[in-house]
Amino acid sequence: MYKGGYTGKILRINLTNQTAKEEDLPFNIASDFIGGAGFGIKYLYDEVPARTDPLGPDNKLIFASGPFSGTTIPCASRMAITAKSPLTGAVGMGLSGGYFPVELKFTGYDILIIEGKAEKPTYVWIMDGKVKFRSAKKIWGLKTTDTQQIIKNELNDQNVRVACIGPAGENLCKIACIVNEMRVVGRKGLGAVMGSKNLKAIAIRGTKRVSIADENKLEAAKREMTRAMKESPVLYSHFSKTGTPMVVDQTCNTGIFPTKNFTTTGVYAPADKLGVEIQMSRNIGREHCYGCPVGCSQLKLAKTEPYKGILTEGPEYETMYSYGGATGVENIDAIIAADRLADELGLDTISSGVAIAFAMELYEKGILSKEDTGGIEVNFGNHEAMITIIKQMAFREGIGDILADGTKAAAERIGKGSAKYAMHVKGLELPAYDVRGAKAHGLNYATSYTGADHNRGYAFQEIFGIPIPYEVDRFAVAGKGKLTKWNQDVRTATCDCPTMCAFILDMAVPGIATKNTASLMEAVTGLELTPEEIQKIGERINNLARVFNVREGFTRADDTLPERLMTEPLKGGAAKGHFISREELKQMLDEYYAERGWDIETGIPKREKLEELGLGYVVDEIKTLKGLSKSNEKEQGNP
Amino acid sequence: MYKGGYTGKILRINLTNQTAKEEDLPFNIASDFIGGAGFGIKYLYDEVPARTDPLGPDNKLIFASGPFSGTTIPCASRMAITAKSPLTGAVGMGLSGGYFPVELKFTGYDILIIEGKAEKPTYVWIMDGKVKFRSAKKIWGLKTTDTQQIIKNELNDQNVRVACIGPAGENLCKIACIVNEMRVVGRKGLGAVMGSKNLKAIAIRGTKRVSIADENKLEAAKREMTRAMKESPVLYSHFSKTGTPMVVDQTCNTGIFPTKNFTTTGVYAPADKLGVEIQMSRNIGREHCYGCPVGCSQLKLAKTEPYKGILTEGPEYETMYSYGGATGVENIDAIIAADRLADELGLDTISSGVAIAFAMELYEKGILSKEDTGGIEVNFGNHEAMITIIKQMAFREGIGDILADGTKAAAERIGKGSAKYAMHVKGLELPAYDVRGAKAHGLNYATSYTGADHNRGYAFQEIFGIPIPYEVDRFAVAGKGKLTKWNQDVRTATCDCPTMCAFILDMAVPGIATKNTASLMEAVTGLELTPEEIQKIGERINNLARVFNVREGFTRADDTLPERLMTEPLKGGAAKGHFISREELKQMLDEYYAERGWDIETGIPKREKLEELGLGYVVDEIKTLKGLSKSNEKEQGNP
Repeated sequence: MYKGGYTGKILRINLTNQTAKEEDLPFNIASDFIGGAGFGIKYLYDEVPARTDPLGPDNKLIFASGPFSGTTIPCASRMAITAKSPLTGAVGMGLSGGYFPVELKFTGYDILIIEGKAEKPTYVWIMDGKVKFRSAKKIWGLKTTDTQQIIKNELNDQNVRVACIGPAGENLCKIACIVNEMRVVGRKGLGAVMGSKNLKAIAIRGTKRVSIADENKLEAAKREMTRAMKESPVLYSHFSKTGTPMVVDQTCNTGIFPTKNFTTTGVYAPADKLGVEIQMSRNIGREHCYGCPVGCSQLKLAKTEPYKGILTEGPEYETMYSYGGATGVENIDAIIAADRLADELGLDTISSGVAIAFAMELYEKGILSKEDTGGIEVNFGNHEAMITIIKQMAFREGIGDILADGTKAAAERIGKGSAKYAMHVKGLELPAYDVRGAKAHGLNYATSYTGADHNRGYAFQEIFGIPIPYEVDRFAVAGKGKLTKWNQDVRTATCDCPTMCAFILDMAVPGIATKNTASLMEAVTGLELTPEEIQKIGERINNLARVFNVREGFTRADDTLPERLMTEPLKGGAAKGHFISREELKQMLDEYYAERGWDIETGIPKREKLEELGLGYVVDEIKTLKGLSKSNEKEQGNP
Repeated sequence: MYKGGYTGKILRINLTNQTAKEEDLPFNIASDFIGGAGFGIKYLYDEVPARTDPLGPDNKLIFASGPFSGTTIPCASRMAITAKSPLTGAVGMGLSGGYFPVELKFTGYDILIIEGKAEKPTYVWIMDGKVKFRSAKKIWGLKTTDTQQIIKNELNDQNVRVACIGPAGENLCKIACIVNEMRVVGRKGLGAVMGSKNLKAIAIRGTKRVSIADENKLEAAKREMTRAMKESPVLYSHFSKTGTPMVVDQTCNTGIFPTKNFTTTGVYAPADKLGVEIQMSRNIGREHCYGCPVGCSQLKLAKTEPYKGILTEGPEYETMYSYGGATGVENIDAIIAADRLADELGLDTISSGVAIAFAMELYEKGILSKEDTGGIEVNFGNHEAMITIIKQMAFREGIGDILADGTKAAAERIGKGSAKYAMHVKGLELPAYDVRGAKAHGLNYATSYTGADHNRGYAFQEIFGIPIPYEVDRFAVAGKGKLTKWNQDVRTATCDCPTMCAFILDMAVPGIATKNTASLMEAVTGLELTPEEIQKIGERINNLARVFNVREGFTRADDTLPERLMTEPLKGGAAKGHFISREELKQMLDEYYAERGWDIETGIPKREKLEELGLGYVVDEIKTLKGLSKSNEKEQGNP
């Protein structure tokens, strides 16, 4: 049944009982959900019941690669990690690249499902089919680089690959991440889920190889992909050289690089301080994920005291925003140092930076006093304060303890009307785009199943002016529901599931993404799917994720944006005067729900849509919940 | 000729021409010098002429393993690195363990001789017999852990082993070290020699295995050794659990733990602040060198702010002294942080700590002002100042620039009578024993061919009361010349050359060291040597090293101690009232030279001694120099 691509195996690891069990990957799950995020969301929905405590033993942590990972397809060494997010309470799903994802495939498994909770700090060591539970007493408290190194030493094999948490995950910071090599599954607090299970790390080593259904077809499909990559006007010529940092200049120019907690976007656009030129002055070289010819990841070395000599892989564009624009810090070396520090402590750079920016605004407004901050002057631009608070968050000390669970929880603890300055959707901090000047991207923030997540439906049409599938006006409202659905479904189906680097979608194959994915899928797995069917899989997964969130109590009211973006027009720059009014958001949501086949009033998927997507089995479950869509209510009244 | 142990090969690498040449290891060199330090000193003497600039292209850097390294003999994964020291101008030789030394053997080479100077930052990549010169542009400026990781990534093999320098070596700090894994060849500024050659790192990977002359004999000799290890009253019962840190309590009790730049030793003995108990409260586990059943290396994790979460391998006893006792710092977490920082920046912890302690005394005496220190309050006990100055040294900033070349050079630059507070011999900073209460150890400092070096002739008889080869009174003067010769020759022959961890000599086999080395040598190499012949090899090497130093202009006058130790009696503790007067030092030196067969007036080896040791070929060379011994002068007058 599995000619290739998939190994067809799940490894189920129970930390409570210290057992490991191999299961077959059912064919219909493979064919209906492809891999990666699809697998994660499918198993999360099926196995983690409503209202499960995200930091309790019943939450599950699902590591899933896709059929492309471990093959010769370039840019496909990625994996999705899925759990119920402690930060949002919604689906928590994030991806990373590097080498761990292919190594996972080489162990012979497509999916690891981590269940239960270890009694004591533990790490799991997987060598092909052999699983060992080892004490993490020695490495508990260690930073992520040290953790990886000490495990490699202990296992006496430097080629072991490790995914781990830092002190932030151990201390259950709800903005903690999971780190493999210098790569990060950053968002939604998945590091805290690992920490709650007393799971410091997963170490893996595999010797198995992935078989391919049709090598000739694979070569042809890869040629199609690599041709598109070579023809890209930006991929090798710019992106490969500078990586995501190049975006700072772009968004400063278009007036959507968020600054000082979104209070001065466009007015204060520090491209001269944080732009690609100054970033590249710290560049010393590049790193590549397994099998990637692009190598977008930039190594940067801080040049000035007190940060001199600190290396980081990054900072990516998002971190230039969160530790730079959002906090008003203009010291590139401080941002480099903060990036490395957060990776070492295992903190999401976006959420932690936005949380600090939030505290800075409160401090400047007098809502937080020097007493509240333990004497730290938490002004915009204070890089020493930023560095101190990053450490405090990971160790849950001082003001850092309050911020360590993200801006939404911090606002609840601080009170005093602070909530309106908390820049998040569903608890997930806003990424690096002031969506007042990119409205489909704003709709994506409002509707993404993970909260404000640029990666679930990135509106490259608005941000880079790429006219695929059609040209759009970034300030317009009409048509953005349809566009957002396309962005979300295509991205899910062609990137998050197979798995494939999203930059390839954005910069090389946006026009042929589903077609190319179909070709690659057929070549590696033997599954014959049309481009339309590929896109439909993306839609299925976005619907199942939505249903998970509905079951958790999320409604249309949660599909919103921070008040500031809906009430305060941008005061300067190329997007001056623009904002997403409540009425505009309503219009976009109405269109989006209609396009999705979701009930417009509640935002709940209609029965017909779910059945069309082969998700009929979920209808029974969600109709027992309140806040049902009209369509499902009808069903309920008419059994 | 080489039945085993040796691979019999030298790899000569010329950085100027970017060439690599394989040479045979001559049998007489192997048999007369064993390996490690013996090889290093032999090639240094033969190939680096008098008055060579240590930081010029004509200095050579010699990496040499010994016949035991890479075999199944435990505790033998060590290597010696030898060059003319930029810190002392004398022989610079240091050893480290870990995994690099065996990997070197597995490449098929016993010795790497690095010559010349690369035009641009370079690293050398040796895979078995293949040598590549690669650009180090990307890694120049990186800390040592990052350097190792980025090279492994670049070579796409995490099992590559790397020896490298940090920023301190690049910046030609004369107290810079060479780091492999978390191991360090710390002393004598060998890191600056690498830096002067634009050589950032040597990366190696080997697949060859070392053959053994007689496996049965090897098993028997190993049984003898492992029995002695098991019978040791300290090795497994104490040392394996706590490592060198246990020595703090011992030397505080015996009044020889040096404190506040040797001004308060015995009076101020902070065992309660820095002793084994507090150190072990930070212990999280151990690390082992290749093939070591002891695993003395302690991993410690800082617990309190601002150092919380910083891991180090160490601090070893010496570092507890240099960053603790000598500086008066009592904050264990600061010492942990400083240890890691120095390893990352590539600075010797002993020399850098003693240099800081020197600055602290000068600051407290008013010889250095706040203006001189750039505003830093450099008082004894100020751990923030210590951390700051460590960074400044590596980057040659502020007061750190002055201290980065060691205390002797710093005293010359500072003037104002500061030289008498500079605790060094021949430019090498004093290690962690106040030798006013351990006089043979003091004589070793005065006479060691590397300067004040505890490792060249460690007087465990005085420090631990071990009565081998006989019981001694640590305060006595008579007999210390003979003892020091024994300590130096046995240590050289049984540890530094074969190569073998010195802790095994000190704690397990002191009584059978030469016998066991002879047995192991015969088993692995087929060379039949008596214990006396083994010891003679140690003597040969100490003589050749002495001749190297004589050729560089060193005389009896350089075999001395810091003024303080010869004029100020200890003011408290178990060694109260003791010091090594000039007269006592004279007596010990007279006895030492007589025992060594060196001219008593000049300290130059006599012709007869050199010929007895098979070193007759050096007589012609040294007799052309001034300051010849009487014996050699006679020779000169009577050709």
